Amino acid sequence: MRTVDLIQRKRDGDELAPEEIDYLVDGYTNAEIPDYQMSAFLMAVYFSGMTDREVSRLTECMLRSGETVDLSAVPGIKVDKHSTGGVGDKTSLIVAPLAASAGVLVPMMSGRALGHTGGTLDKLESIPGFRTDITPEEARQLLSEVGLCFLSQTDRLAPADGKLYALRDVTATVESIPLIASSIMSKKLGEGLDALVLDVKVGSGAFMKKQVDARRLAQMMVGIGRRMDKRVQALITDMSQPLGYAVGNALEVMEASQTLQNAGPNDLTKLSIELAARMIYLARKTSSLDEARRLAEEKLVDGSGYRKFKQAVAAQGGNPQALDKFELLPNATGMREVTSPRGGYVSTIEAEYIGAASNMIGAGRDRKEDAIDPAVGIILEVKVGEKVDAGSVLCRIYYTREDHVEEAAEMVEDAFHISAQKPEERELILEVVG
Amino acid sequence: MRTVDLIQRKRDGDELAPEEIDYLVDGYTNAEIPDYQMSAFLMAVYFSGMTDREVSRLTECMLRSGETVDLSAVPGIKVDKHSTGGVGDKTSLIVAPLAASAGVLVPMMSGRALGHTGGTLDKLESIPGFRTDITPEEARQLLSEVGLCFLSQTDRLAPADGKLYALRDVTATVESIPLIASSIMSKKLGEGLDALVLDVKVGSGAFMKKQVDARRLAQMMVGIGRRMDKRVQALITDMSQPLGYAVGNALEVMEASQTLQNAGPNDLTKLSIELAARMIYLARKTSSLDEARRLAEEKLVDGSGYRKFKQAVAAQGGNPQALDKFELLPNATGMREVTSPRGGYVSTIEAEYIGAASNMIGAGRDRKEDAIDPAVGIILEVKVGEKVDAGSVLCRIYYTREDHVEEAAEMVEDAFHISAQKPEERELILEVVG
Repeated sequence: MRTVDLIQRKRDGDELAPEEIDYLVDGYTNAEIPDYQMSAFLMAVYFSGMTDREVSRLTECMLRSGETVDLSAVPGIKVDKHSTGGVGDKTSLIVAPLAASAGVLVPMMSGRALGHTGGTLDKLESIPGFRTDITPEEARQLLSEVGLCFLSQTDRLAPADGKLYALRDVTATVESIPLIASSIMSKKLGEGLDALVLDVKVGSGAFMKKQVDARRLAQMMVGIGRRMDKRVQALITDMSQPLGYAVGNALEVMEASQTLQNAGPNDLTKLSIELAARMIYLARKTSSLDEARRLAEEKLVDGSGYRKFKQAVAAQGGNPQALDKFELLPNATGMREVTSPRGGYVSTIEAEYIGAASNMIGAGRDRKEDAIDPAVGIILEVKVGEKVDAGSVLCRIYYTREDHVEEAAEMVEDAFHISAQKPEERELILEVVG
Repeated sequence: MRTVDLIQRKRDGDELAPEEIDYLVDGYTNAEIPDYQMSAFLMAVYFSGMTDREVSRLTECMLRSGETVDLSAVPGIKVDKHSTGGVGDKTSLIVAPLAASAGVLVPMMSGRALGHTGGTLDKLESIPGFRTDITPEEARQLLSEVGLCFLSQTDRLAPADGKLYALRDVTATVESIPLIASSIMSKKLGEGLDALVLDVKVGSGAFMKKQVDARRLAQMMVGIGRRMDKRVQALITDMSQPLGYAVGNALEVMEASQTLQNAGPNDLTKLSIELAARMIYLARKTSSLDEARRLAEEKLVDGSGYRKFKQAVAAQGGNPQALDKFELLPNATGMREVTSPRGGYVSTIEAEYIGAASNMIGAGRDRKEDAIDPAVGIILEVKVGEKVDAGSVLCRIYYTREDHVEEAAEMVEDAFHISAQKPEERELILEVVG
């Protein structure tokens, strides 16, 4: 087998055999295949795509390349949720405790902020004392005792994926649906899961800008899961405006807390209930999805989810009181209002701009090694479809340093589009796949 | 400027600006841009193509990367000929002396055999004593005194092309028309030429299998030449069967000699006259192409071309007597006939198989470092359209070692297709571009 022949066959649109995929991934991980051949192969995949059989094998190879967190010693059905990333997407903080309080075991494997989208681990670390560097032993213990743990994606999990991702990042081969699908699934299926609920975001604030691409990605991930005997469902959800009102780490923890106390934004509450219900249903805790929805709602309304969240935070070293007394969370020192230049209806809030503005004042990072400021962020005052007057507040920017505040304010202003007509309502949950 | 952004823009089909092409080629030549980014870029070019403006700039960059053989001190119009390579293509040996004997200065820059196609330098080196390692100073002298020299493409000529070609070879990005066009032209225009005649081969024995691809390649090369103020014309010629009868180094020198004595095969003679005529016309030695054709024919018939070839061979250290007395050339020790299994018409002679069979017994090389056997090769007895009886000889294989003779004979048998109907005649010169 020669690497150049495999590159050529992929270039020409052929399907590679399972052992050919193995040869490429194992060879690359062992440094037998050089970067320059792999990057040409990845660009060929960008253009020629991959079949479901190829992408499943690629995922298995990457999964096999690393350690898997063995959770089989913990009895019970384990279900995780994964979002492809958006602006203001704090559903993990709400959904995991809701599902856990309904009896689902939730090993929540999370990532960090990169680019304009946030990361669950960064949000959790804004809670004083919270530890995300959990060992496999601790994970098993937390899962047994609390039914929930928040885990960090380590480099040991799927090193082939880590190495491939670093190469994709510098060779313009990130935006390939089969490569995205296999990268996500190789990390998620490394946990020893039984089922997985996927939230594939689509819109200006998401990685996938078009619904057709989001659907293809969702289908591919569901297919990969099925081939590996996991129960997988995917929701395709709107990310044309931020989810909820809060964007920024501590600000999102506060909003998640409020939502778990049944005092959160409608969109965030609705999506969290739906995701938790799917987890409950896939864990076979109920016999129908409707029953699962009622159970998730019940756990929200009766405070079980909120209590579960506090318990989980405490178990990972965090101060649970910070979830009631927000003054215990990092707080910004300055605030700047952004007002509407004219009256009308909010027709669009470009999530990507809001995310980028929040990053600009320190809430996110452009490079992996950048530090983040947990206190800062943006809180929207209005959402798409609401009526505003000239001069009324559109959002508030919370900052600790004045450096980039003006720039961020300008970007936020550009994010809001005000129109004379009331815009058509857009569905939050667009499709279900699987 | 970031390399990854340029890869992405090429991937997305954008045209890169001249300074962006410079950045990539210069950066790669200076080892500031790593192989893995360049190979992703090359694969993106494979899929997205390049505009004429981009490919011209790429050629100029590669040209600038090396030494150019400065021939400006030699007064007169310099014209070269380049063939994209075929089986039995010995036209350089005929065309260069014909044009030179008509007063054109011909610095003939040649390559070596690789894959199933032959190389002019290898053919010339089968003449005892012939030297191809000519210095720029010697080249100028030969050009002044003989009007003709055969030069070797050195690594110093266009090192960026050499480095890029080596990378393309292992990343399945060789077969890209803009990359082929710029690679050829960067080496050809390094000689300080005034004009260039291109012979773009198409068919089973050529790199370009389809006429539409050959046309696009020809158009691109003509365009590159024009943008650099060179007069360039391209012929698109048939390579569905070998050119002439002889395939193999010394065997092709013999056939070229015969052709220069007006005793060669029709197809080879016809194409050589046409190519020489174009060189004469582009060098403005005649005021019309028809006049140039008559002049080229005259130089063939009156033996001027043949005498010029002998003079050039002697000037480069070769024994000119070997062009009369073929026993002075390396000769094979064994011969095997391949006969027709049935009567009928020769409908196809797959040039690629003939070239591969000739390679198999030592006439060519698979890798750059392989040695070749100048004596061996194949001589066809018939060409497409001729009638054969069952058992009549199709061709003879000349060998010095018996190792692969049977295998080669089988391949040659597969190359000949015999049909009941006489096949339609195929034009030798299919198109003229420029």
